[in-house]
Amino acid sequence: MSNNNRSRAEFTARYFVESSVPLARAAEVIAGEQSSGTFLALPGETDDLKERARARVARVDSLPPVLEPSLKSAFVERKEPARLFYRGEIEIAFPVDNVGANLPALLSTIAGNLFELGEVTGLRLLDIDLPADHAARFPGPAFGIEGTREKTGVLGRPLIGTIVKPSIGLLPGQTAQIVDDLCAAGIDFIKDDELLADPAYASFDARLEAVMPVLHRHADRMGRMPMYAINISGTIDEMLRRHDKVLAAGGTCVMMCVNWVGFAGVEHVRRHAQLPIHGHRNGWGALTRFPQLGFSFAAYQKLWRLAGVDHLHVNGVRSKFWEPDASVIDSARSCLAPFAGVQPVMPVFSSGQWASQAPDLFKALRSVDLMHLAGGGIIGHPQGIAAGVASMREGWEAAAEGVDLETYARSHPALRAALAHFKAV
Amino acid sequence: MSNNNRSRAEFTARYFVESSVPLARAAEVIAGEQSSGTFLALPGETDDLKERARARVARVDSLPPVLEPSLKSAFVERKEPARLFYRGEIEIAFPVDNVGANLPALLSTIAGNLFELGEVTGLRLLDIDLPADHAARFPGPAFGIEGTREKTGVLGRPLIGTIVKPSIGLLPGQTAQIVDDLCAAGIDFIKDDELLADPAYASFDARLEAVMPVLHRHADRMGRMPMYAINISGTIDEMLRRHDKVLAAGGTCVMMCVNWVGFAGVEHVRRHAQLPIHGHRNGWGALTRFPQLGFSFAAYQKLWRLAGVDHLHVNGVRSKFWEPDASVIDSARSCLAPFAGVQPVMPVFSSGQWASQAPDLFKALRSVDLMHLAGGGIIGHPQGIAAGVASMREGWEAAAEGVDLETYARSHPALRAALAHFKAV
Repeated sequence: MSNNNRSRAEFTARYFVESSVPLARAAEVIAGEQSSGTFLALPGETDDLKERARARVARVDSLPPVLEPSLKSAFVERKEPARLFYRGEIEIAFPVDNVGANLPALLSTIAGNLFELGEVTGLRLLDIDLPADHAARFPGPAFGIEGTREKTGVLGRPLIGTIVKPSIGLLPGQTAQIVDDLCAAGIDFIKDDELLADPAYASFDARLEAVMPVLHRHADRMGRMPMYAINISGTIDEMLRRHDKVLAAGGTCVMMCVNWVGFAGVEHVRRHAQLPIHGHRNGWGALTRFPQLGFSFAAYQKLWRLAGVDHLHVNGVRSKFWEPDASVIDSARSCLAPFAGVQPVMPVFSSGQWASQAPDLFKALRSVDLMHLAGGGIIGHPQGIAAGVASMREGWEAAAEGVDLETYARSHPALRAALAHFKAV
Repeated sequence: MSNNNRSRAEFTARYFVESSVPLARAAEVIAGEQSSGTFLALPGETDDLKERARARVARVDSLPPVLEPSLKSAFVERKEPARLFYRGEIEIAFPVDNVGANLPALLSTIAGNLFELGEVTGLRLLDIDLPADHAARFPGPAFGIEGTREKTGVLGRPLIGTIVKPSIGLLPGQTAQIVDDLCAAGIDFIKDDELLADPAYASFDARLEAVMPVLHRHADRMGRMPMYAINISGTIDEMLRRHDKVLAAGGTCVMMCVNWVGFAGVEHVRRHAQLPIHGHRNGWGALTRFPQLGFSFAAYQKLWRLAGVDHLHVNGVRSKFWEPDASVIDSARSCLAPFAGVQPVMPVFSSGQWASQAPDLFKALRSVDLMHLAGGGIIGHPQGIAAGVASMREGWEAAAEGVDLETYARSHPALRAALAHFKAV
């Protein structure tokens, strides 16, 4: 394989690899599997074909080997039990012409059978990169941070939001009542739980019909409409119909469970949509929790940026989830970082959040371009929902002014009550 | 929570769980997270709501605990470093009314945030079950095994097939030439590689136009058309257009990379399609290789059966992949097993296959309702492609007659050459 065919346009994928064969060999196996190779040399694999289609090993950086494989492989055990498992990072360069602007083909190329290769005892997609003119052929976010601020009228601070709880089971009128209370409290953003799509007792249509008049009433009062991310996840036809219904009713956002709608579905809705898409990543844990397998968030968010989601969940700092805080912060940074000319996606912090996390997030990110969602942290505030929302805003005011929360709380009763109540929980 | 609300219709999900809290408690946390619960008691979670929407812990079977967590959790480390990690299997029953016939909502419910719960240090979806009238609301396979046999005219034995190789890089005329050779050799089934969708140098349209006349010519000769699973993966509009083009051209199958098209996309194509859908599962390794995380194939194939794929890949026995042979056999069995009145999906064996695996597969499955795909095992046969195909059929004849391969090979030269050649490789 030639290493000199730099004239062809290429995109790259960077992986952590652990393998029973030396790393450079593993990289060649992966490059072959994910382009023109097979397990036998074939007469059809000519130089022309390689030049056109063959993936190229762009970089191999070894790490110290390990004595035990991270993932078992019956292939290794059958062929020749290994005593050492080589580790490192590799980068593979693929011809743009192999996939074009086809998201399923891109995924099959960078995240396909390679996870199953017998020689591989660990493989994680760490990052991807595309030439800007390649990335421009995918839809990308239509609204992003700027468009979301425009739709909500919230400038210069994070969007303070919440999830309607209980997650599922409320009747449409009950949901509308909670939304009414949240709007009265001055909330910026409300979302459905990811479990709530179109249950028999609270259909999408009934929910939208119950909630929209409430949102309009508060919009008339406030001069801006709180953004309600209603979960449209379902079949393609249902999602398009639901989007159109939200648009016609004057709503300003739709939500999709991106992993389970899938790339083709999300891209299709994105190309049709005239509203920001709130991307919920539930199921993500299965793709990322074992560190030597699956996907890093840095790669994952780029793929959904290409598909065109405008907001993407990143968990919360000190959340109820497994993830270390540093990893959550890294995720948010990656959402905000430049990527091949594709606009950023707005990171959404959620789970176990209340005012206390504001200074941590601001210090780590030096940005207010995010959504900060609190469930119990708002609805469970001892002085009520309005104080819950106020305490979140006050937390961010303190953070932006560089004042510690305890000090700021002296002159801000909602924050003070939150600190007293939630610290003790 | 009531355990007596059996009158409501429920579907179930069975999990392996490992947790820092005792198993019964972990089961309640999961049931709460995936239905009406949150981290604070909420006034809205009334008895009516619970009866309507709350998931129910149906079963808890403990296994011996372990001293080290399978997956790290910053939550556990922050809250109270655990000394024991409880393990077992649990079954959760969810109200059918929570999700209806909505595939993304079903997935968000059974495979959503629960993977990320802080208390959870291992979680794997082992199986699902649905009442038959619930399952009937999903599309399911339109063709399945019977419809595939009808389209191919192959009865009473497996479909012998191959993948056009090199995987990617051939020009349309070169693909047509290989297809011509394969058809002349009497092949039953040919598929695109999963990497090959619509490359710049061999577009879908050009490939279809080059291949279809070849298939028709051989169909006229043979009285049956070899099934060509052409990869239509792409955007929703492209997939529908490509399906229609295959149908209009007289083709008999379309292929999709199911994980990366996604549930909404596959279901949409299924509801539109008039041809069998060949489901390629590339990327599956990321979802299953760590045994205490992700999905078992038993659950996975049911989900794609609901979505309506007709064929699904299961790797091969003695393949180039990581998977133990027993696991491959279990996968195929699950594809063929009854499931809530949804018809079976045809298992597709692939990777490192040649005639030698036929007796193993037949002995294990006692069925010929499968596809047996060989790449190098057919194209790399020392006497040519026709002998490669013949050797595969002869392997299955021997298996069905209960004659060992060596004996059968005495009177069957193609099989004899395969045994001599591939055993030595």
